[in-house]
Amino acid sequence: MEKVFIVGIGATKVREHWNLSLRDLMVKSAIKAINNAGINKQDIKAIYIGNMSSGYLQGQEHLGALLATWLGIAGVSACKVEAACGSGGAAFHQAFLAVASGLYDCVMALGVEKMTDAITSDVTSALIMADDQEYVAFTGASFVALNALIYRAYIKEYGVKQEDIALFAVHDHKYAVNNPYAQYRREIKIEDVMNSPLIADPIHLLECAPIGDGSAAIILCNERFLEKKVSDQEGVIEVLSSVLATDIISLHDRDTYITLNATRVASSKAYKMARIEPKDVNVVEVHDAFTILGVISLEDLGFAERGSGWEIVREGEIEIGGKIPTNTMGGLKARGHPVGATGIYQIFDIVTQLRGEAGKNQVDNAEIGLAQNVGGVGGTVIINILKRVR
Amino acid sequence: MEKVFIVGIGATKVREHWNLSLRDLMVKSAIKAINNAGINKQDIKAIYIGNMSSGYLQGQEHLGALLATWLGIAGVSACKVEAACGSGGAAFHQAFLAVASGLYDCVMALGVEKMTDAITSDVTSALIMADDQEYVAFTGASFVALNALIYRAYIKEYGVKQEDIALFAVHDHKYAVNNPYAQYRREIKIEDVMNSPLIADPIHLLECAPIGDGSAAIILCNERFLEKKVSDQEGVIEVLSSVLATDIISLHDRDTYITLNATRVASSKAYKMARIEPKDVNVVEVHDAFTILGVISLEDLGFAERGSGWEIVREGEIEIGGKIPTNTMGGLKARGHPVGATGIYQIFDIVTQLRGEAGKNQVDNAEIGLAQNVGGVGGTVIINILKRVR
Repeated sequence: MEKVFIVGIGATKVREHWNLSLRDLMVKSAIKAINNAGINKQDIKAIYIGNMSSGYLQGQEHLGALLATWLGIAGVSACKVEAACGSGGAAFHQAFLAVASGLYDCVMALGVEKMTDAITSDVTSALIMADDQEYVAFTGASFVALNALIYRAYIKEYGVKQEDIALFAVHDHKYAVNNPYAQYRREIKIEDVMNSPLIADPIHLLECAPIGDGSAAIILCNERFLEKKVSDQEGVIEVLSSVLATDIISLHDRDTYITLNATRVASSKAYKMARIEPKDVNVVEVHDAFTILGVISLEDLGFAERGSGWEIVREGEIEIGGKIPTNTMGGLKARGHPVGATGIYQIFDIVTQLRGEAGKNQVDNAEIGLAQNVGGVGGTVIINILKRVR
Repeated sequence: MEKVFIVGIGATKVREHWNLSLRDLMVKSAIKAINNAGINKQDIKAIYIGNMSSGYLQGQEHLGALLATWLGIAGVSACKVEAACGSGGAAFHQAFLAVASGLYDCVMALGVEKMTDAITSDVTSALIMADDQEYVAFTGASFVALNALIYRAYIKEYGVKQEDIALFAVHDHKYAVNNPYAQYRREIKIEDVMNSPLIADPIHLLECAPIGDGSAAIILCNERFLEKKVSDQEGVIEVLSSVLATDIISLHDRDTYITLNATRVASSKAYKMARIEPKDVNVVEVHDAFTILGVISLEDLGFAERGSGWEIVREGEIEIGGKIPTNTMGGLKARGHPVGATGIYQIFDIVTQLRGEAGKNQVDNAEIGLAQNVGGVGGTVIINILKRVR
């Protein structure tokens, strides 16, 4: 396998982009990433687009050809990759393999989702397509409801107070304040979270990642391209490992609700492939679509013991300056969660940290970062481990 | 890059499967391919699913985790790949890269589409999502209408009689008779085609590939796996090249309607990568979603001069025993066209020929085969060139 490097990143702010179409969002983030890498767009030989619901929400498939056309590089390889809310991470994984294979010197992984040009009930219908339509969705369960089952099981198993889990949302908002790309750049208090309306008991509104529009893009290349085209670039990042793992798609068929097995499988493989251990990670992005998922992910990734993810949040270990700085740009809760784009935004945020470009949110001497992207209720998990190599 | 081999194929018959769900179709073809390869399902480490419209038509995304679950191998890498009607070919291309990269020893490429559990207008809406929603689909143009523009331009440019182009449908039906997987196993006459209703002038009903349900699967592996697990297998196929190219997504922005530039770009790269020329190909599958596309593809692939694709059809050169046997199992028109699955069915058919398992339709001494899969009106084209190596 060839070594794979990241040499460019670009993103739009996450928000309700009523004046930008799906196409506009893609083109904007792509051009930013190309400019950030300091390459020509003609250098890109393949594009992988992470997106979940463009067909259902915008009546638009075939995003590969659409983006290649509007970037002015029709001819290149391009396709869409879908793995529910893990689509962005899955697209990055394919982009990684495409470069690792040796067939392409330079490729782009891009994530996009536009959720505000559909009426709200449509977004809810779109999201539940991440679970089994015939055995789960048809019952009327919403995606929030499924995560509420996880939340209840966790609270019952470990006898934790909900406030201790809900704290994850407060954490995320604190760091989004300094992130120009974040959807909600304001702090919230634990009382705000606990007093916000119940969406699916026990999950409150402010424990849910919001609906939003956005696109982010990453330029990946091999060593040959790196030396030839971007040899003067500082802050080059190597992809040490990229692993995708599935789990049984629906909760009711699993042995347990309170751990995401796909996170355990994918992260243990990723650590091995990267030849590191959890303690070597300096900054992490976890997929906190709901506060409970943030807490469980800290455990499944090996940063906390089972049942104690909430403790390391309360003890400040996930703060900048703590043991394992987590979601330092706002996470899904406050940076935003345009589903198919999220996996790419996470990598954007990790690269920003590893390059030392995180401004007031900078983690000192961040060298190794990890991003965990989840599809469905853990049916798919993608782990990418990145390292600054110069 | 590691060498990539095909060691197993499986498919369901293409038809209206009112009693089989999307999941059932996928599982059936996957198990057939696994058994055909003589491997254990646990040998498969990644799955790539080609599908265009499961979200819109069945309310089901996240097919990767769904299939991994129902195959009983949750844990493996799995995702969906979409490139409109080229989704199957695009999924195969990713599977090829996944093995070529060295990360996976054995993977599955699977295509699936279920079109009969949606009302007809929905299928029409689903298919037009292959073109630009904001500039083309919104005008009310159907996918057939766009191909009618190509048809008219071709007839005008070359002064060809429509009967000569429509003959392509007659050709396909003749060979579907002997294909147990084909949707329409009966011969038709040119008069039947010309007297069938107009769908979008000048395209007649019997010039259009039908709507249908189906799934096909292919097992790919590297040389290490081949020697260790399937060393006694006869009829092993090597993937000499796999290339995906895009073109400007919509016809109105292109210089010409009467050639698919993506076919020319992808096939010339694929010939080069495989180190062969068109004359070396013994059997070919072209993407004849409409008769005119079959004719133009013969030209774009280098088997006929520009403007003379219809002649080699009329002269019998594309028959079994002819110069370049084409769509020998019925093609899209008669084998069927479950859109996201078609690219995999094409490879299934080519492998069947290269293995010498095509029965009454066998092409003598078929050693090298080529499959051309098209997404949209040529916005994406995938070319795969296969060779029997033992």
